[in-house]
Amino acid sequence: MHKNFKGVEKTVFGRGSFDQLGDILAPHRTGENPYMVFLVDAYFNGKPLESRVPAQNNDLVYYISVEEHEPTTEQIDTLRDEILAKQGLPAGVVGIGGGSIMDIAKALSLMLTNEGSSTLYQGLNLIKKPGVYHVGVPTISGTGAEVSMTAVLTGPEKKLGLKCEWTVFDQIVLDPDLIATVPRDWWFYTGMDTYIHCVESENGQFNNAYSHAFAEQSLALCREIFSKGQTPETDEKLMVASLMGGLSLTYSEVGVCHALSYGLSKILGTRHCYANCLIMNHLDDYYPEGVAEFKQFVAQHNITLPQNLSAEWDDDTITKMAEVSYNLPHMWNHAIGYDWKNTITMDVLKDLFRRL
Amino acid sequence: MHKNFKGVEKTVFGRGSFDQLGDILAPHRTGENPYMVFLVDAYFNGKPLESRVPAQNNDLVYYISVEEHEPTTEQIDTLRDEILAKQGLPAGVVGIGGGSIMDIAKALSLMLTNEGSSTLYQGLNLIKKPGVYHVGVPTISGTGAEVSMTAVLTGPEKKLGLKCEWTVFDQIVLDPDLIATVPRDWWFYTGMDTYIHCVESENGQFNNAYSHAFAEQSLALCREIFSKGQTPETDEKLMVASLMGGLSLTYSEVGVCHALSYGLSKILGTRHCYANCLIMNHLDDYYPEGVAEFKQFVAQHNITLPQNLSAEWDDDTITKMAEVSYNLPHMWNHAIGYDWKNTITMDVLKDLFRRL
Repeated sequence: MHKNFKGVEKTVFGRGSFDQLGDILAPHRTGENPYMVFLVDAYFNGKPLESRVPAQNNDLVYYISVEEHEPTTEQIDTLRDEILAKQGLPAGVVGIGGGSIMDIAKALSLMLTNEGSSTLYQGLNLIKKPGVYHVGVPTISGTGAEVSMTAVLTGPEKKLGLKCEWTVFDQIVLDPDLIATVPRDWWFYTGMDTYIHCVESENGQFNNAYSHAFAEQSLALCREIFSKGQTPETDEKLMVASLMGGLSLTYSEVGVCHALSYGLSKILGTRHCYANCLIMNHLDDYYPEGVAEFKQFVAQHNITLPQNLSAEWDDDTITKMAEVSYNLPHMWNHAIGYDWKNTITMDVLKDLFRRL
Repeated sequence: MHKNFKGVEKTVFGRGSFDQLGDILAPHRTGENPYMVFLVDAYFNGKPLESRVPAQNNDLVYYISVEEHEPTTEQIDTLRDEILAKQGLPAGVVGIGGGSIMDIAKALSLMLTNEGSSTLYQGLNLIKKPGVYHVGVPTISGTGAEVSMTAVLTGPEKKLGLKCEWTVFDQIVLDPDLIATVPRDWWFYTGMDTYIHCVESENGQFNNAYSHAFAEQSLALCREIFSKGQTPETDEKLMVASLMGGLSLTYSEVGVCHALSYGLSKILGTRHCYANCLIMNHLDDYYPEGVAEFKQFVAQHNITLPQNLSAEWDDDTITKMAEVSYNLPHMWNHAIGYDWKNTITMDVLKDLFRRL
């Protein structure tokens, strides 16, 4: 059985396209409560972008800080309950921010129409009803969350996505101007997420001509972007690389780095792209060429990745991280093969975490 | 204003994925008349694929010959009237064939719900209502019709597409096994359509980072495919190249070759991909590098493109071809610039046709 992949409904790409957002939303302001919910990265609070958000009348605008932790099931449930209590079901949800905001917008759209806690729906095709119209406007590029079929949430039990075809955005607006002001370290970590997606997508049994073509081009773009550094031209290329990396892994799968990264983020709250970089640095055994090139990028951009983090982790913490990683069979199936349990044991995973 | 591009709703890619078609259609067999219309290239009549078409109960299966002419407005109108008179509005339309069948399926889907002749809707956003659910299953790759926003029809007045967001397929099934038996010359002509799409998309003012990334990868795939020849591996790559070439031009535009090719096809009925090859051969003035590489592919595959065709055309025929080409301003705007009328005159166009 080959995957039947849902694509983003509509895409605008181009410098200044953010100014088309109001016109794009207008025909979707329908129904009993024709209002929109804007979820904006708190980074933009007080910045020029704030005045350009096309909110009107009864629209709700939330500035959400994503610095403290990754999106959680509790955060989504609370936000959903508050919005429904305040104004009833909105006509749509618009996320303006990075990967966390993209995931919050996708998850909120689904949870506005699906009852109970979002913890009930972490997994593949557990969502019962389509969500409300939802739009993604990335302001930092690399996670591929703008095109993926998942909204990754951290819950009390697990870090796992609400993954189904209704998760995918109805509209994305890709304006390279919006990523121009990303702090340099996050530009690097998030861009590296794309690079890691491609390395993982390519190295595993689910890779195929489709995922390969997207990964190959995304990797070529990454090499150009990270050799030239951030410019208006490479910002445009990074937006496309992120999209292509996301499409590659959607048709293939992520692998060892993401499996470990989920463990680290779930237990310590480390943000996703940074966690990936911390781990990729130590995966020479699994992706020798990819890790060598990754280390070149790190050196070239004078990025300091902390070492000996695990010295401060007790065995219980490391065991919990390893358990989270072990419980992601779809990633191990891809990266190692269906017989992955022969080589990937809890001890192997704990040893990998101890290298950090 | 940047284009807001509608993508294909769902995509399956993989060898043998054609056998998933029945399961894919099942949940869409809804409404008063839950039947499907299959439009199959007559080439498959009596071939093994015939017995694999998942038609059931009241489904209608049409075997349509695309050898005599390109899809016409009259053909679509007649087919629509016949289907509606026979069984009423179907639940969906499934096209199984090459670019012509893709265009017929897309156009029929729209014309089943939009009244009057399809000639009324040739152009951008003239269609009033969404069509019925429609699925594209390419059996020959290169035209990009599986992902494009247009269904090109030849009418009494013009050759022009029904172009709107509802034209785009709800589902495509990309099974590389289906293109394995394409006759060698059509494999070449149709594959070259992808190559020409990329050259045209890249060379013009509407090219951007998005269309460029897709064209660049599609061109790399074309180079590999046409240096190795047709193999199971290059069939997979050609399906992806066709899709990426189609996405590139959707976000940019076609150019000189397509503008002239529409003139040739409209007046003489020459099939699209073949017409493109006949013309590309003489466009050194516009795409010097692309034409040089095109000629290498032609030589390498021992393809004979007839010369001196225009010797048999009178001035009236050539004038008509030139008129059709001249009336495609969106292509000329892209290829030459908004001031294209300063350099592209009827005399220039007639001279180009006389070179054929």
